Amino acid sequence: MSSTAALNFDHTQLDEKKHTPQQVIVELMKLYYTQGWVSGTGGGISIKKDGKIYIAPSGIHKERIKEDQIFVMEEDPNVQVKDIQSCQHLKTVYSPNDHGYNFKISACQPLFQLCYDVRGAGAVIHSHALSCMLATLIYDKEFKVTHLEMIKGIRGFGFYDELVVPIIENTAYENELADSLKEALEKYPNTFAVLVKRHGVYIWGKDWVEAKTHAEVYHYLFEAAVRMKQLGFDASSSK
Amino acid sequence: MSSTAALNFDHTQLDEKKHTPQQVIVELMKLYYTQGWVSGTGGGISIKKDGKIYIAPSGIHKERIKEDQIFVMEEDPNVQVKDIQSCQHLKTVYSPNDHGYNFKISACQPLFQLCYDVRGAGAVIHSHALSCMLATLIYDKEFKVTHLEMIKGIRGFGFYDELVVPIIENTAYENELADSLKEALEKYPNTFAVLVKRHGVYIWGKDWVEAKTHAEVYHYLFEAAVRMKQLGFDASSSK
Amino acid sequence: MSSTAALNFDHTQLDEKKHTPQQVIVELMKLYYTQGWVSGTGGGISIKKDGKIYIAPSGIHKERIKEDQIFVMEEDPNVQVKDIQSCQHLKTVYSPNDHGYNFKISACQPLFQLCYDVRGAGAVIHSHALSCMLATLIYDKEFKVTHLEMIKGIRGFGFYDELVVPIIENTAYENELADSLKEALEKYPNTFAVLVKRHGVYIWGKDWVEAKTHAEVYHYLFEAAVRMKQLGFDASSSK
Amino acid sequence: MSSTAALNFDHTQLDEKKHTPQQVIVELMKLYYTQGWVSGTGGGISIKKDGKIYIAPSGIHKERIKEDQIFVMEEDPNVQVKDIQSCQHLKTVYSPNDHGYNFKISACQPLFQLCYDVRGAGAVIHSHALSCMLATLIYDKEFKVTHLEMIKGIRGFGFYDELVVPIIENTAYENELADSLKEALEKYPNTFAVLVKRHGVYIWGKDWVEAKTHAEVYHYLFEAAVRMKQLGFDASSSK
Repeated sequence: MSSTAALNFDHTQLDEKKHTPQQVIVELMKLYYTQGWVSGTGGGISIKKDGKIYIAPSGIHKERIKEDQIFVMEEDPNVQVKDIQSCQHLKTVYSPNDHGYNFKISACQPLFQLCYDVRGAGAVIHSHALSCMLATLIYDKEFKVTHLEMIKGIRGFGFYDELVVPIIENTAYENELADSLKEALEKYPNTFAVLVKRHGVYIWGKDWVEAKTHAEVYHYLFEAAVRMKQLGFDASSSK
Repeated sequence: MSSTAALNFDHTQLDEKKHTPQQVIVELMKLYYTQGWVSGTGGGISIKKDGKIYIAPSGIHKERIKEDQIFVMEEDPNVQVKDIQSCQHLKTVYSPNDHGYNFKISACQPLFQLCYDVRGAGAVIHSHALSCMLATLIYDKEFKVTHLEMIKGIRGFGFYDELVVPIIENTAYENELADSLKEALEKYPNTFAVLVKRHGVYIWGKDWVEAKTHAEVYHYLFEAAVRMKQLGFDASSSK
Repeated sequence: MSSTAALNFDHTQLDEKKHTPQQVIVELMKLYYTQGWVSGTGGGISIKKDGKIYIAPSGIHKERIKEDQIFVMEEDPNVQVKDIQSCQHLKTVYSPNDHGYNFKISACQPLFQLCYDVRGAGAVIHSHALSCMLATLIYDKEFKVTHLEMIKGIRGFGFYDELVVPIIENTAYENELADSLKEALEKYPNTFAVLVKRHGVYIWGKDWVEAKTHAEVYHYLFEAAVRMKQLGFDASSSK
Repeated sequence: MSSTAALNFDHTQLDEKKHTPQQVIVELMKLYYTQGWVSGTGGGISIKKDGKIYIAPSGIHKERIKEDQIFVMEEDPNVQVKDIQSCQHLKTVYSPNDHGYNFKISACQPLFQLCYDVRGAGAVIHSHALSCMLATLIYDKEFKVTHLEMIKGIRGFGFYDELVVPIIENTAYENELADSLKEALEKYPNTFAVLVKRHGVYIWGKDWVEAKTHAEVYHYLFEAAVRMKQLGFDASSSK
């Protein structure tokens, strides 16, 4: 819980082995704020490491999160029924509210948890980037691209493959997305992202390093599809 | 009045309790300069805290404002008639001109004051971002969006709501906007922003933290509407 | 000739009275590199102060200029005939080539000099920003905008005025532009900018502070006109 | 192998004579990450100096490369047959894997090597910028521009010249590009760049300073051609 100042705007110094999940969250939120993914308190991030889940509070400027403002949770061995949506199988290990803050845990928490429980993710990034939102408009229920080099940045995919990202409908409250997110996670076992119509995207990887790679690659592909559309090309086709 | 250098380009370290309004103004102007909201001396910001109003001078590079260049004003209890437009009910508590400068107070001051007096704002951000200006062109008298997740970032609004921002006509001089701004503030009690045709926008919140959130959310929505239009979508519709 | 490091990427600390023209040039080139005005060694800047002219060398990365790499010149009282294009009336006060470098003076020098001699400029910024280049395509011989608030950022202009920037034809070599630039400067006495077809723009002000304001305002207007065109609006009209 | 921290995000302090190839690689990758050329581990860079070749590892976040993670290679005088594609004529002088890492050398290495061997390059930049990829869509087999000032930034070209960049087909694996890259290098002796369809671009220069200039100029021209197309202009024509 030290020296945010020293790391400030310096995600390039992050080291998988040396830095804590809190330090990574603080730095990546600053980075992605500069790229427009988490403006106006939108978006978020969660990391799971050594059985513990790290998650930012709700409704605060994401680029100003401090390390001691991050909730830490873990599985409660006393709870038998794993009700993913309510997250009753989790207990709080560290709450910023015990240290002078008055926060609610991010409303994305059940959604992050689904990615951990259903897909074995190690980190999840939630982005409101304009390119994500626009990508959900120019496609209907599935975002599809093929024959783009950057597709190779997603684990298991090659240049000639068709990369599909399911688009689920948005809801009034973030936690209401859980059912349709779970359905998409099960129906599309090869995706590392789920788009939410007129909203944004959830992207994950086996750890924060892969989640970061995937997040940047998907955002590139979303923006590419939008700009290709403006130029008269269809990104779901090799023509 | 200390250490602008230490805070320089570091709005992520701003703390609601610790930093003065002058420090916040200095940092947010640097931040929003990098986002194109206050280029070429355009745009501005004002904060009201503990009965005092902090406001930047007119016609200077907004990203280079120093803490001792910011005017401080408060209500004059001896003035009975509150003529908002002339701001005669205010007296100057601190003037940079007493400290070696030769500044005029921002021409936006009566407009900022209207947001304080009519709407109880705690901070007002005035932006000339290109997306604001373009948004006033693709709509006539009201900017309208609906079914976009980021709408939830505005206090009181949900995803399915229609968010309306009134667009008032521009005038030759900034202070001539006061009448139509006042009218819009009264006619649209739920808005936290008023667009000015071919000019920009005034955005506020109950304090600088909410004003920052609102400002970033509205700018996202303005840019979203413009890009949706380029892609053949109408942001005022859920289709 | 000191401490570029301390000032590095910190144009917000520049002070008209305290900093040397060399320090201003170094900082503004870093700033405008980040905005895409001087990428790939393109673009440039010159400042005139107390009778001395400061100008960067040719063909180097503009964002990496050091203070001791900047040429300093002044009028030579022994030369009677002021041949502006050849700049024979100038003599070198400081040459970086006397200090271990091997530079040529910027090919823009006669053009900067014209702005000093014909229009009394105190600083001239030459930009290759994409928005400038595109603006020269969507207009023929004159860039025209009206009814845009940012127009007020140009000295002497109001919101309802028509702001005209002449567009001269490009030539094979930068110094061949001198004749047509001189003609434009004389024909358009109210402009503070001259666009060069498929090339970029020269923008000036009475000192570097005004030149910076003008440069940012003109760039806003160029980009505005291009984006308006994409949205089906004509920036030269109030409709 | 010292002080990445001190140089961090400060490419403007790079000095041709003072800094090692490793330091240059570290700084330029940070710089070009901010410009979107190497997001999501994509893109790369290699430098050749004093007979040694410096090259980054594969599949890591390019903006986080450390100096001791960079492979160093040189020609092996014992190998007679120079099989460029397999790079068997090279031997490793320094491997990060001898120092606690577990990296593969970049898959671009045979392609970088071709630029060194066939064209005498001193540095090669590989970019995945969106503008490069889009440029390969709006042209078929050759990217062509003319009558744009920035063309003069490429060695040997003038404003009125036609600048041609060959576009080769993409392949499933990066090293499969070697044949068609070699063919393009031989067929287009005046180009300093080869585009790869739906992928990106390889750009080089006689040293890293020229490679940086060329890279920025070509990226400007790619983006210019795309935006011109959106505005109805054809960048391959002087009209």
